[in-house]
Amino acid sequence: MKTVDMIVKAKHIFTMEGEGVGYIENMAMVIDRGRIADFVPVDNVDESYTAEKTLELYNHAILPGFIDAHTHVDICIARGLAQDTKNWMFYGLQPFENAMGIDDTRASVKLGIMEAIKSGTTTIGEFSIGVEPTCEFVEKSGIRGIMTETVRSLKERIYNPGELYEFDENRGLRSLEENIAVYDKWNNRDNGRIKVLFGPQGADFLSKELLMRVRDEAKKRNTKVHMHLQQGDRETEQIMMRYRKRPVEWLQGLGYLDDTLIAVHLTDCTEEEAAMVAKSGAGMVVCPGSIGIIDGLVCPSVAFQNAGGYVALGSDQAPGNNCHNIFNEMKLAALFNKIKFGNPEIVPAWKVLRMATIEGAKAIGMGDEIGSLKCGKKADFIAVDLNKYTMQPVYTRPMRNIVPNLVYSARGDEVALSVVDGKVIYENGKIVNIDEVECLEEIKGRVEGISMRAEKEFNEIAGTNFVFMREGKL
Amino acid sequence: MKTVDMIVKAKHIFTMEGEGVGYIENMAMVIDRGRIADFVPVDNVDESYTAEKTLELYNHAILPGFIDAHTHVDICIARGLAQDTKNWMFYGLQPFENAMGIDDTRASVKLGIMEAIKSGTTTIGEFSIGVEPTCEFVEKSGIRGIMTETVRSLKERIYNPGELYEFDENRGLRSLEENIAVYDKWNNRDNGRIKVLFGPQGADFLSKELLMRVRDEAKKRNTKVHMHLQQGDRETEQIMMRYRKRPVEWLQGLGYLDDTLIAVHLTDCTEEEAAMVAKSGAGMVVCPGSIGIIDGLVCPSVAFQNAGGYVALGSDQAPGNNCHNIFNEMKLAALFNKIKFGNPEIVPAWKVLRMATIEGAKAIGMGDEIGSLKCGKKADFIAVDLNKYTMQPVYTRPMRNIVPNLVYSARGDEVALSVVDGKVIYENGKIVNIDEVECLEEIKGRVEGISMRAEKEFNEIAGTNFVFMREGKL
Repeated sequence: MKTVDMIVKAKHIFTMEGEGVGYIENMAMVIDRGRIADFVPVDNVDESYTAEKTLELYNHAILPGFIDAHTHVDICIARGLAQDTKNWMFYGLQPFENAMGIDDTRASVKLGIMEAIKSGTTTIGEFSIGVEPTCEFVEKSGIRGIMTETVRSLKERIYNPGELYEFDENRGLRSLEENIAVYDKWNNRDNGRIKVLFGPQGADFLSKELLMRVRDEAKKRNTKVHMHLQQGDRETEQIMMRYRKRPVEWLQGLGYLDDTLIAVHLTDCTEEEAAMVAKSGAGMVVCPGSIGIIDGLVCPSVAFQNAGGYVALGSDQAPGNNCHNIFNEMKLAALFNKIKFGNPEIVPAWKVLRMATIEGAKAIGMGDEIGSLKCGKKADFIAVDLNKYTMQPVYTRPMRNIVPNLVYSARGDEVALSVVDGKVIYENGKIVNIDEVECLEEIKGRVEGISMRAEKEFNEIAGTNFVFMREGKL
Repeated sequence: MKTVDMIVKAKHIFTMEGEGVGYIENMAMVIDRGRIADFVPVDNVDESYTAEKTLELYNHAILPGFIDAHTHVDICIARGLAQDTKNWMFYGLQPFENAMGIDDTRASVKLGIMEAIKSGTTTIGEFSIGVEPTCEFVEKSGIRGIMTETVRSLKERIYNPGELYEFDENRGLRSLEENIAVYDKWNNRDNGRIKVLFGPQGADFLSKELLMRVRDEAKKRNTKVHMHLQQGDRETEQIMMRYRKRPVEWLQGLGYLDDTLIAVHLTDCTEEEAAMVAKSGAGMVVCPGSIGIIDGLVCPSVAFQNAGGYVALGSDQAPGNNCHNIFNEMKLAALFNKIKFGNPEIVPAWKVLRMATIEGAKAIGMGDEIGSLKCGKKADFIAVDLNKYTMQPVYTRPMRNIVPNLVYSARGDEVALSVVDGKVIYENGKIVNIDEVECLEEIKGRVEGISMRAEKEFNEIAGTNFVFMREGKL
């Protein structure tokens, strides 16, 4: 008889091992020192193990926690303030982003991460200018964090359409130093629960020299480069003007595309370009909801997968998505591609669940540690309540409908339990390490200030949502 | 001082009157005898009215209840059993539909309607073969029901691709008689809360004579014809073979397109055909999630609207959507069209909220009774809890973000209260008139039988999901 930290007795476990969803039935998952130690038939487990905490989850589906590989939770406090508009960055987001200070950011990351935890995300890949407030809340909340500080040398001023960006190399170097400082302070915190990556914002925002330098710093530390790639026609235009090549082709020529890279969006990539990135060994993050709302586009994740690459899901940001909920991204990833290809068989439910778990883990280079339930891996998992209407009824034969309903019917509130590194971070509707009421009050307390500071610029820009307000449409 | 049934004191009310969302602030809505009697500033209402029930909903958005104008809740018990496949009807649904008996249908409608109520639907437009079990549960639950019995004379046998359907006129007449019997028994039940429509399944499933006869019966009773229209290339092919015209053109020639018609899907319609239907005065129902999953297509609701027509939303069915949740349809209606047109400004949040409420009401011919909050109209409304994370934070200036967050962020569990005809049908997480636990047990009790009866045909058809099961993908 061995004493362990936790035993999870379950009817339905989706391990995500193998080529599909790795379903096993009536098994107990044994957790010890933050890792999965064993799987034993439920009926026998008590003969071999005794635990501090035993969970009986017979009305639940147990699966790896979701990986939300690309987020900007630092602007979650602007949820719902920018969408339904062209030029989202300028007409939508800008007045509110400019109105935000550091205390707004602190409140913002809390909202985004709490929302993510409650909808089953156990790993969040944040990308911010000034990522430390997010590191702090990731540490406190218990979620796993893949943190990226933004590096860019863009000189901030208004650029006319077609005008080449100016670089300020000192500014760029300072942002790289900040990235290194965040790395030194936060990487491997709490037994490796927090990792720090390097974050060139995009090939158009840095000089070639700085772009290469960032990558060297990442490689030296054996960490990853997390970068937006060919994320719109503006980036393509900039790189064409500067180097006479399209971004993917140019980066390929520099030897920039390899397995150090996590490439986000690929919005303006052709299928051939997406395949080129995939074949380099780089991972991809696709953010269906965000790019659907912001650009009305479906990014080439299917071409990337067809070329052998791994694709993770990302919720991106709340002012233009408008949520941090991987259930939303799963459904949209499947449906958008069915529509893009006019084919209901494209991106089936099991494939998209793999993107949210094991394939997502591989895309961000953590496939050996998380993303599936396997002995030796970190114990990051969730339990989904099958008694919720959206998951009812449950069939196991001739066909199991649990995975289709996770992807197409579940909304997020079915998540009943969330565990990271073997520690419960969410249970019975409550985030364990967080005073949710206090956080929510803090968030509410920031609204008035942002409203006041944003008003002038919002009115001056006079974008789509300004017009909607004037016309009584909102 | 007047005594009324209910006073709803609120901070945010979206009346949906006018061209936008009709926002009013700090008002009390006065309800009496099932209808909206008055709007008074919150601070003054106690001077004029006293009520049996006063609700203080200052942390909520009050809006008209959602209209889900086209459903098949009678097959909700097959949720998640048919998707990710071509030829959904045959490869996906058929083995399970054939395995269902009347008791399965009874359980099924309960699941679908409970799910709808909990996510803010106050009017459901059911279309079934044998709609009476749904009528019974609609009556009991308190939701508003627009009930349609299916009329069709198709002789049931296997048809080869390209083979013309055979009709059995006696069978068709019997189904019409059933429709009339349902009308006589159920139309106008409970002070008009239940309405009965006439339901030719589609132009390809009935003889021309019966199609015209059904419509005459509807017109005679001053009710509507609720019909699938040009719902796929198979329908177009059948009508082309039989009449040498495409369905819309043929129906137009018959004088079938007019304001008696509620036309569903229009999947295979060109933009011109959709415009032709709109100009006739007919309403349209679009079911984004269902047709996205089943066909990988986006139906021409925008062309219909651009031609001046009104479009309602529908959740269609759970084995291939996989939910009855208008929040899902709102988000998908907006996003699918942004992608279809490559334009983030198409179908903004406020427009889609109008489709779920006032424009949906107009599309089904009930614009004078429901769909907006206006004195004299029926008191069908919901309260959405703005303290839920998905609705946070709340801004009122310089821009109100409540409607964008309702459409793009809310999932359905934010609905805190639902009222139909001035009667509370859902409150504090509980459906008032239903024993939810008992219903759920009934549903669970049907699974084993359906599984057993479906197995042989599921294996014989050997469709996509059969292959997925064999390969461990589900």
